[in-house]
Amino acid sequence: MSAADSTFNQNLCIVLVRTRNPLNIGAVARAMANFGGSQLRLVAPYDLAFREARSAVGAGELLAKAEVYPRVAEAVADCTLIIGTTAATNRSVSLPLITLPNAAPQIAEPARTGKVALLFGSEKRGLANQDMSYCHWLMRIPTNPESPSMNLAQSVVVVLYELARTWNQNHATVKLEAIPAADPPAKMQSLLRLAEVMHETLEGCGYYSEAAAASSQEQLRRLLLRMKLTEPDSEVVLGMFRHILWKLGANSPE
Amino acid sequence: MSAADSTFNQNLCIVLVRTRNPLNIGAVARAMANFGGSQLRLVAPYDLAFREARSAVGAGELLAKAEVYPRVAEAVADCTLIIGTTAATNRSVSLPLITLPNAAPQIAEPARTGKVALLFGSEKRGLANQDMSYCHWLMRIPTNPESPSMNLAQSVVVVLYELARTWNQNHATVKLEAIPAADPPAKMQSLLRLAEVMHETLEGCGYYSEAAAASSQEQLRRLLLRMKLTEPDSEVVLGMFRHILWKLGANSPE
Repeated sequence: MSAADSTFNQNLCIVLVRTRNPLNIGAVARAMANFGGSQLRLVAPYDLAFREARSAVGAGELLAKAEVYPRVAEAVADCTLIIGTTAATNRSVSLPLITLPNAAPQIAEPARTGKVALLFGSEKRGLANQDMSYCHWLMRIPTNPESPSMNLAQSVVVVLYELARTWNQNHATVKLEAIPAADPPAKMQSLLRLAEVMHETLEGCGYYSEAAAASSQEQLRRLLLRMKLTEPDSEVVLGMFRHILWKLGANSPE
Repeated sequence: MSAADSTFNQNLCIVLVRTRNPLNIGAVARAMANFGGSQLRLVAPYDLAFREARSAVGAGELLAKAEVYPRVAEAVADCTLIIGTTAATNRSVSLPLITLPNAAPQIAEPARTGKVALLFGSEKRGLANQDMSYCHWLMRIPTNPESPSMNLAQSVVVVLYELARTWNQNHATVKLEAIPAADPPAKMQSLLRLAEVMHETLEGCGYYSEAAAASSQEQLRRLLLRMKLTEPDSEVVLGMFRHILWKLGANSPE
């Protein structure tokens, strides 16, 4: 079961959000070496944790080239599919929640055409709602319902094992069903830029009530994620809103 | 996927041989709580490691009732199937070696009728030939061939995940769980209405050159079809454009 040189593996990013424990960071890097995933990204890790993990004996290549980002938005900017992981079944967030064995086959195909980010939250609290607002959907590892809370690095290794297993099983099939080269899905950074310009436009023409303004950006991001825009289409829509924004400014009485 | 009360789970013993690191013992206990296995057995653990693991905060029931044995023979005495785990593919021992995904279905049936022991060797050296002499066969987790050596607790959690997955799949064939389509896709009439209002908006702010104006409505429709909007989302976007259109009119100098 070698996923080492596959496109799938090249495009898989493990994103650890606010990790505290250096042992977990090291264990995740090792799990990636065992099963797959070429890029380890850390969002606002505890500084000490990251330095310790990086300096550990045998930390290896993945940890050496791990990248640190201040926010989730930057960490997933070049990705086309962002999946959050959660232990909870009673999330208030209205995102699709899929169990790992069913999710794995749905990740293989997108990972052939663009970067896929798997987000793992902090040891104590998991992902925040704010983090999840960057996600297309959520994934849950099916556990004993009486004991659903997993160790961070263990949840990463289980996910990577399942992806490698599914990928190797489906490899031949997936190749046969290769989709015609349509336009690539929009990168997260394109969607975020679009969301910003849309927000500015809508705010500029008084679309939001004061009460709604706070959550409006998050809602816009979710809306855009649901749309499944292609990269060229996201450029077109961005151009539209830039034009509207310019016109609103030009017409404005001030 | 609950294996908590199955016979399978009741009969599954995890046997750690000469474990050194208390963190690994604790992590194995947690993995068992997450996925299954009712009995944790330790063969000649480093004394200090076991005492530390047991006294750790939240060590839980599995660790509290873990049993210590001096030798493998005693630890597996009441078992009917003993399986050793190994990372190496070049064992000199002449035992059948099966990869985890293929092994899992072969463990389910024996575990219904008798105790099954899964043996995991020490962090440094794995199982000794002597330990393997108690095994019916060996099991290997398929990893990246360039990086086959796994963390002890991680290899336990991957094995338990795979057993639980396989067991539950065979138990009651897993219902195919597509990404739930929470909201219905937008009806064509909603998209056409949206396309019209968008077109009016964009025309109103001079987005289209004269040359492009002819084909612009068609392009907008195509763009909206590619977006795969849901019905509620199409209403939201329609509302946005109506608001922008209203604002453009209100600001207009005429």
